[in-house]
Amino acid sequence: MRILWISAHPDQRSLNGSLMADGLRALEESGHEHRTSDLYAMGWKAVVDADDFRRESTERLFVGDEQERAYKEGKLSDDILAEQEKISWADALVFQFPLWWFGPPAILKGWFDRVLLQGFAFGLHDAEGRVLRYGDGPLAGKRALIVTSVGGRESAFGPRGINGQLDQVLFPMLHGTFWYTGMTALPPLAVYSADRSTDASYARDLAALRERLRTLDTAEPLSFRRQNGGDYDEHMVLRPELAPGRTGLAVHQAETQGLRAAG
Amino acid sequence: MRILWISAHPDQRSLNGSLMADGLRALEESGHEHRTSDLYAMGWKAVVDADDFRRESTERLFVGDEQERAYKEGKLSDDILAEQEKISWADALVFQFPLWWFGPPAILKGWFDRVLLQGFAFGLHDAEGRVLRYGDGPLAGKRALIVTSVGGRESAFGPRGINGQLDQVLFPMLHGTFWYTGMTALPPLAVYSADRSTDASYARDLAALRERLRTLDTAEPLSFRRQNGGDYDEHMVLRPELAPGRTGLAVHQAETQGLRAAG
Repeated sequence: MRILWISAHPDQRSLNGSLMADGLRALEESGHEHRTSDLYAMGWKAVVDADDFRRESTERLFVGDEQERAYKEGKLSDDILAEQEKISWADALVFQFPLWWFGPPAILKGWFDRVLLQGFAFGLHDAEGRVLRYGDGPLAGKRALIVTSVGGRESAFGPRGINGQLDQVLFPMLHGTFWYTGMTALPPLAVYSADRSTDASYARDLAALRERLRTLDTAEPLSFRRQNGGDYDEHMVLRPELAPGRTGLAVHQAETQGLRAAG
Repeated sequence: MRILWISAHPDQRSLNGSLMADGLRALEESGHEHRTSDLYAMGWKAVVDADDFRRESTERLFVGDEQERAYKEGKLSDDILAEQEKISWADALVFQFPLWWFGPPAILKGWFDRVLLQGFAFGLHDAEGRVLRYGDGPLAGKRALIVTSVGGRESAFGPRGINGQLDQVLFPMLHGTFWYTGMTALPPLAVYSADRSTDASYARDLAALRERLRTLDTAEPLSFRRQNGGDYDEHMVLRPELAPGRTGLAVHQAETQGLRAAG
């Protein structure tokens, strides 16, 4: 497989840095190819602005339209083009980051904002004129894995833990970004109590990471529902006979694994 | 009231820019004081790095510890200190942004990452040694309102809409950031179909915004559970007699408003 590893930690001597180095080594041992986007080391620009589009106009800026136009006219800045080329190359993407305010650090959020733009990552239509998203789309066929370090304890991210169940807290990435663009979302891997890492806990965390990497192409993904698979009506609402009477993010999975069903 | 309005759109001639200008005017008419953090106009730095701490050490960087140390030793960069001063001044915070990848633009995510640091926004303890968070904490007593523009339709963000129910998609901000630091989270205001705004829809959207601003100090907030209020056990798991048998983000609200209860 060809794997793109995107990381977002300011210091490679961190727990995240060690896991990345050892994770890449594991991929090499298995004969996989990899490329990396170490966003801090690259000095990645986090913020969408007019420089992204080599824009000369001073007219009002419609961000989504401008992104698509620049993409189609070959006017995107080189740093964005380089990331899109890596994504196109890859069979699987690994996103590694410390969980800050229950989401990715700004530098990684900005990678999504700037790189996954309309035309490249979404906004295409099928022969019947339907928008291709949520399971279909330009990035379909690729797999995406989150590896995140968390200060808190595992129990606090469980089905009734105070922080919210981890894969529901990460729904904007797993479902709203990966699945939206067509990528298959794997269950996220969390490294808990990351501020209190020891040699013993590191060995456990690395073993878990190696197992996830070993099964990157075979692991059962989160079973999100396809937009155009018949489960949603014309208002993009789940049909009443599916998960009847229930609400909440878990209804968007066809089975009860992963995002566990409520009630 | 004293209101801090934080906005994150690259062009003030946008729908967001117009709503902000008209919203601030409404606050003035009601006799409220306001200050603003227009992050794009300020050239806000989105990314946490060593420059935030006026750091000279080349030792391994522990981000959270370094943030707290710099805060306590008065070494934070001036842009962070200015934002903290505004927060301390304010009774209520309005966060206005276009929803990008189901979350805040990177420039706003970086405002949370850089400004709401340990010591200032969380990490304090009560007399019994309990950590003050989720309903208690340094920012308790303040109210926070999200105003977000969304390209999609309202139905797609409803209780069974394909994008996920809006206040669950925004859980990392509403619960994981506002409530975590002690702030009271108000139900978010969304402006739907924002790419197809018309004079008529703008009038409706502005009326909705004005109503939210009029009731900023009286509106019923989301009824998230307090960490130290007895609802969670020592593992930070919701006690079994509360929302019995249920899982999902909705269990962290005491009643079924806002984040609606599942089945």
